[in-house]
Amino acid sequence: MCPNSSRFLWLLKILVIILGLGVAGFTFGSMFLPAAFSSLKLALPSPAPDVQKLKLLPEEHLRNLFSYDGIWLFPKNQCKCEANKEQGSYNFQDAYGQSDLPAVKVRRQAEFEHFQRREGLPRPLPLLAQPNLPFGYPVHGVEVMPLHTVPIPGLQFEGPDAPIYKVTLTASLGTLNTLADVPDSVVQGRGQKQLTISTSDRKLLKFILQHVTYTSTGYQHQKVDVVSLESRSSVAKFPVTIRHPVIPKLYDPGPERKLRNLVTIATKTFLRPHKLMIMLRSIREYYPDLTVIVADDSKKPLEIKDNHVEYYTMPFGKGWFAGRNLAISQVTTKYVLWVDDDFLFNKETKIEVLVDVLEKTELDVVGGSVLGNVFQFKLLLEQSENGACLHKRTGFFQPLDGFPNCVVTSGVVNFFLAHTERLQRVGFDPRLQRVAHSEFFIDGLGTLLVGSCPEVIIGHQSRSPVVDSELAALEKTYSTYRSNTLAQVQFKLALHYFKNHLQCAT
Amino acid sequence: MCPNSSRFLWLLKILVIILGLGVAGFTFGSMFLPAAFSSLKLALPSPAPDVQKLKLLPEEHLRNLFSYDGIWLFPKNQCKCEANKEQGSYNFQDAYGQSDLPAVKVRRQAEFEHFQRREGLPRPLPLLAQPNLPFGYPVHGVEVMPLHTVPIPGLQFEGPDAPIYKVTLTASLGTLNTLADVPDSVVQGRGQKQLTISTSDRKLLKFILQHVTYTSTGYQHQKVDVVSLESRSSVAKFPVTIRHPVIPKLYDPGPERKLRNLVTIATKTFLRPHKLMIMLRSIREYYPDLTVIVADDSKKPLEIKDNHVEYYTMPFGKGWFAGRNLAISQVTTKYVLWVDDDFLFNKETKIEVLVDVLEKTELDVVGGSVLGNVFQFKLLLEQSENGACLHKRTGFFQPLDGFPNCVVTSGVVNFFLAHTERLQRVGFDPRLQRVAHSEFFIDGLGTLLVGSCPEVIIGHQSRSPVVDSELAALEKTYSTYRSNTLAQVQFKLALHYFKNHLQCAT
Repeated sequence: MCPNSSRFLWLLKILVIILGLGVAGFTFGSMFLPAAFSSLKLALPSPAPDVQKLKLLPEEHLRNLFSYDGIWLFPKNQCKCEANKEQGSYNFQDAYGQSDLPAVKVRRQAEFEHFQRREGLPRPLPLLAQPNLPFGYPVHGVEVMPLHTVPIPGLQFEGPDAPIYKVTLTASLGTLNTLADVPDSVVQGRGQKQLTISTSDRKLLKFILQHVTYTSTGYQHQKVDVVSLESRSSVAKFPVTIRHPVIPKLYDPGPERKLRNLVTIATKTFLRPHKLMIMLRSIREYYPDLTVIVADDSKKPLEIKDNHVEYYTMPFGKGWFAGRNLAISQVTTKYVLWVDDDFLFNKETKIEVLVDVLEKTELDVVGGSVLGNVFQFKLLLEQSENGACLHKRTGFFQPLDGFPNCVVTSGVVNFFLAHTERLQRVGFDPRLQRVAHSEFFIDGLGTLLVGSCPEVIIGHQSRSPVVDSELAALEKTYSTYRSNTLAQVQFKLALHYFKNHLQCAT
Repeated sequence: MCPNSSRFLWLLKILVIILGLGVAGFTFGSMFLPAAFSSLKLALPSPAPDVQKLKLLPEEHLRNLFSYDGIWLFPKNQCKCEANKEQGSYNFQDAYGQSDLPAVKVRRQAEFEHFQRREGLPRPLPLLAQPNLPFGYPVHGVEVMPLHTVPIPGLQFEGPDAPIYKVTLTASLGTLNTLADVPDSVVQGRGQKQLTISTSDRKLLKFILQHVTYTSTGYQHQKVDVVSLESRSSVAKFPVTIRHPVIPKLYDPGPERKLRNLVTIATKTFLRPHKLMIMLRSIREYYPDLTVIVADDSKKPLEIKDNHVEYYTMPFGKGWFAGRNLAISQVTTKYVLWVDDDFLFNKETKIEVLVDVLEKTELDVVGGSVLGNVFQFKLLLEQSENGACLHKRTGFFQPLDGFPNCVVTSGVVNFFLAHTERLQRVGFDPRLQRVAHSEFFIDGLGTLLVGSCPEVIIGHQSRSPVVDSELAALEKTYSTYRSNTLAQVQFKLALHYFKNHLQCAT
């Protein structure tokens, strides 16, 4: 028998083996021969390759690799809040009585599920592409508005030649079609959830695939449809995001871009009119015509003679955050500057500098400093089933691009400039009646990008007691409200547990 | 020469041709032979296949395919607002004087770009996968929180066997690593933006790829990193979304789930105390203990003797939406019911029914009917460079799942229940001082999912003039404010043009 013949049989044998093994998918031109040899290796007995032992790095090592500020930010079943020498830890459910807790947990879970349903959470598991699929397709970024139609870019079929090509696309939240003008014998299911293309003409197939469209058929704000692309045993899946854009809410700074058309000052006062008046006077020294919004929940309404002050009265003692929320609800400029009623403007209180930072960065909020106190803190969240663990650390994450003297962080002092529209989106929770600060930045997690620029400084009025007896009486009453009672602290812990779905904090 | 040998040479020749043609990428096992034959067809002269002419459907046909309510919702360079017999059309830039317009356009464009930058818009073009890539990878859904680390699922290499496998991963906003415990000679660039794996051991390669991790290195709220996966000439790219979850703001309905712990009623009044009082009395007939928040910008503050009414006074004539925004800023329950001060509760005003709808659906807002008037309208947006085109149509999109008597739409009458937190996110623009309604629903586009349930009905007080001379005087003053002056209309058109970045409407 001639050698060639035997070699030929040997080659065919390899091919049969390969087919038998069903080793699917290699790029052809580049690697037919190696593939054949590899299959040979599989087919015929050969020395096992010196496989090295497969093991993972020890957990200790991983902790070092993936920790930030000593917190291991790596997916785990359960997060923990371990106290250490720097800070203690709170277990928020302790705010409830043991007897109430089971019922509270049930309510909290129900409310959390309603929230998740409306936010489209939890998100579906990642979509995995298999190797060597004969399709070209858009892995990411195809987006359509509700009830609109979009072309699906990048669809290709590069499978083997065949007498007939059959490619099927399937959607679930919308319908499919093609702009190609071809008979129904070639394209079936136009305007339906399943579109099937059958043709012997490869060029035609390519043309039809290049012009496939997706049409959203229901009015939905944000959903992800998974479209599948099939031919024979190969299946590719890709996402089509149905999304209604959020309509802009822009503010016109006016032809001269005056500061008064860009910034409004907002404050809340309670039982200390003298401090408010001193603050207002200090504003007028530097900013004669900026609008100032004052929310007051004192007993007696004040008489404020200033055309640029808007004064609002509230039910007595309605509270700190209720007043702050009222004040920001009335702002009609792009930015709002928050100040406490006992602050004092001085020549270093440069609002323009804070405006410049917000105009040139993606920050939503930028804080200054109160007599050198910047009160910067970072909030790090770890998610887990029974609620997230929150870690608060002083300091900042990183310098702010373009502003070497500013930083990116999570929370700042009570003197900050904010995008009005973003600030209103988070708001100040009126349930927080008394001392509250970091609560606002926690509510802003994921919504407000916060920065801090210590170079912009505001003063603070002296804390020495007043002489005037009437004012002294007011300050006395004030202090009784100002102090954080145990009940109020409990209430705040309970809010973090229920409202923010937090488990604990360090 | 023996036939086999010649057949073998012929087969080898084909292979050479195939390799020569560099026809890349077919799934192997399933189709080696057909591929060979097809390549043969390419190699040897053969009759051209009868290709049918490649053409697209005529535009007229496409318009019919992809229109909704007569609006062609298909990507185009420029959208239009054509008036027809049903409705006229507004060109919003007409609200500005010709001389001002050029400067206005410049300001509007600058503000729009700032908005887009902060929202991460416009989104990058779709990421297209090439056919027959030898990789398995996650096409969609890999998400990491800022500064956290996640494993990247589904990474595989199914390329041809080779003496050495070299696979390189590259990120841009974060760093890569692998949990596999392997020497630096095998994995280079741990904890850097580029990770390179080189090994002769296929099993080891698989193991390392199964344990690759992505670490976010900067604090960002929402960005998409594109990670590439390369080996020889093959490149796959997939998105990793860096996202900080928005922290929940849940409300505790309390152990007995009383309506007063779920719903607050909010209203705004101006110069018609008698109507307000009648409305409040009608509320108490049916809901004795629900909290009612009243915002008043009249001249004289009212005396309201009702422990469950919270009364807020504003600067005189501050305006309609300012008052509405103030009222909702004070709500501390999960839901808020909006009513006008001249409505009248009756036995068909069943708040519980509206609560049930919001509890069981994904709606943010659900309207009822005012004496049978549901005022349902749909808003359809078409985006284009110079601003979007807005089409307002009466009616609704679709029935509401689970509530056959309710529908999904874009806008409803001034009697609706809303998720407080969502409503505050959109707010009522205090710049709208007088008659305004659909403006709110336009601001809510993309944020508020709106429904309508006509079965829940509220009454309206009679419009017949009052007898009491003082009240009559008030009503007279009131009507002067109530009427929509030409200037106010102009102002609203200008707001749509600048604030909402709209171009025109039908």
